[in-house]
Amino acid sequence: MSGPGAFERATSVAPRSPGWYDAYLAEGWDIVGNTNGGYLLSIVANAMVHATGRPDPISVTAHYLAPAGAGEASVEVSLVREGRRFSSARGALSSEGTQRLQVLGTFGDLDRAPAAPELVLGTPPELPEPEKCLRIEPGEGFPPPFTRQVEMRLHPDDARFLEGARSGTPTIRGWLRLPDGEPVGTLALLTLLDSFPPTVFNVDLPIAWTPTLELTAHVRARPVPGWLAGEFRTRFVSGGFLEVDGELWDPSGRLVAQSRQLALVPRGDG
Amino acid sequence: MSGPGAFERATSVAPRSPGWYDAYLAEGWDIVGNTNGGYLLSIVANAMVHATGRPDPISVTAHYLAPAGAGEASVEVSLVREGRRFSSARGALSSEGTQRLQVLGTFGDLDRAPAAPELVLGTPPELPEPEKCLRIEPGEGFPPPFTRQVEMRLHPDDARFLEGARSGTPTIRGWLRLPDGEPVGTLALLTLLDSFPPTVFNVDLPIAWTPTLELTAHVRARPVPGWLAGEFRTRFVSGGFLEVDGELWDPSGRLVAQSRQLALVPRGDG
Repeated sequence: MSGPGAFERATSVAPRSPGWYDAYLAEGWDIVGNTNGGYLLSIVANAMVHATGRPDPISVTAHYLAPAGAGEASVEVSLVREGRRFSSARGALSSEGTQRLQVLGTFGDLDRAPAAPELVLGTPPELPEPEKCLRIEPGEGFPPPFTRQVEMRLHPDDARFLEGARSGTPTIRGWLRLPDGEPVGTLALLTLLDSFPPTVFNVDLPIAWTPTLELTAHVRARPVPGWLAGEFRTRFVSGGFLEVDGELWDPSGRLVAQSRQLALVPRGDG
Repeated sequence: MSGPGAFERATSVAPRSPGWYDAYLAEGWDIVGNTNGGYLLSIVANAMVHATGRPDPISVTAHYLAPAGAGEASVEVSLVREGRRFSSARGALSSEGTQRLQVLGTFGDLDRAPAAPELVLGTPPELPEPEKCLRIEPGEGFPPPFTRQVEMRLHPDDARFLEGARSGTPTIRGWLRLPDGEPVGTLALLTLLDSFPPTVFNVDLPIAWTPTLELTAHVRARPVPGWLAGEFRTRFVSGGFLEVDGELWDPSGRLVAQSRQLALVPRGDG
């Protein structure tokens, strides 16, 4: 690969004045017209990386205020704390005069983490080799154009919804990477954490669309190159909300990121 | 009980000017001098409830910038979106001229949730009756004064650290409620989600103190009166960080809140 990859180009930000960045929400990163929320978060986080001078999002939370189409956007970033190891900042992305998301995040440098005790009780999901998993590719309407931007291979047990069936368990496991060998840095992890189809596609609920209210991502490590293994689970569809808990593991078997999002369950009658 | 309870008094805020509130970080809500993070979040969320006119925090995230002692504080709230069902706002609490935490939250009215499909795959933790669990009461230094503000009864299997032993599993289960029969509203849930001792007290790691970088709480329902059952688990101590995932269940068997926090693992040598 030569030059910046598609993800790097689509998430680039240009400083305009102190605290302000120009961005462009690229065409083809949408699900039925709504730009993917993880991708929007990657753009804001990129501006926050620039403003804080820290390369890695450690913990970032986005609240989604309004769906966004493709087009010009601006990102405002305000530093709220500069510490020895971490800096915290607020960010907001607007397009066509409307705020689309607000972000609060703490940034650091994962290469500079001091040695600390470790205890890992989880394991990567058990997945067939990528070539034995199901490729999601954009179709007419479904799967949406966004699926061209992130290469995904779903565990066959979790991909039955592609044929109109359901596994019965609100879980999606599979492989993810950026196309054309583009390296996955910690900003791209934020997009990959929001790339798989909804977990509830696999259960018999009258739910087609689950708009995300809020997404929080924790990044633990920079991934080594290769397919990332992802596992996304929902345990509670209740009170009109559902959560999706995600984990991404790199080819070395290391947990690189966790996420939880809160999505809205549209009412049962439609 | 007559008049406001201790929690309600300790988390009260007084509007000072548009977007600004006076608050007081009460004495005795600290762990070795540092005011409890869940309690700080309840105060900021209370100001956000006032500013948004919505009674319930649906999803709130706090980033902790500096420890806070007891004393006067001010809270600034900026509305970022007013929608039909939800409003989103930013909040920040300062004391002695220093910002202590930043908050981003979406608020609504849980009584007005439209009927929607439900699917609940988790269950409340299995706990002995409260009188057969271990009471945590403040001692000299440990347990800290904060344990006077929230009544807690720990599962005996998870309370061995009180006698210097360890269960081997980074889990804490038990009962929680406010003292003196004070009702637990959705603001109090934010404090209860950060009340139990650290999960890592139960594993053999050289970790004594785990400062919280970030705490996110999702509130699903208003609890009915009585003891709440809580379960807090850590699965990944890695990269210098650990997460704590929490659930609170009310006496009707309903999940009322979920939380995840990211805490810092102090380096192994100290």
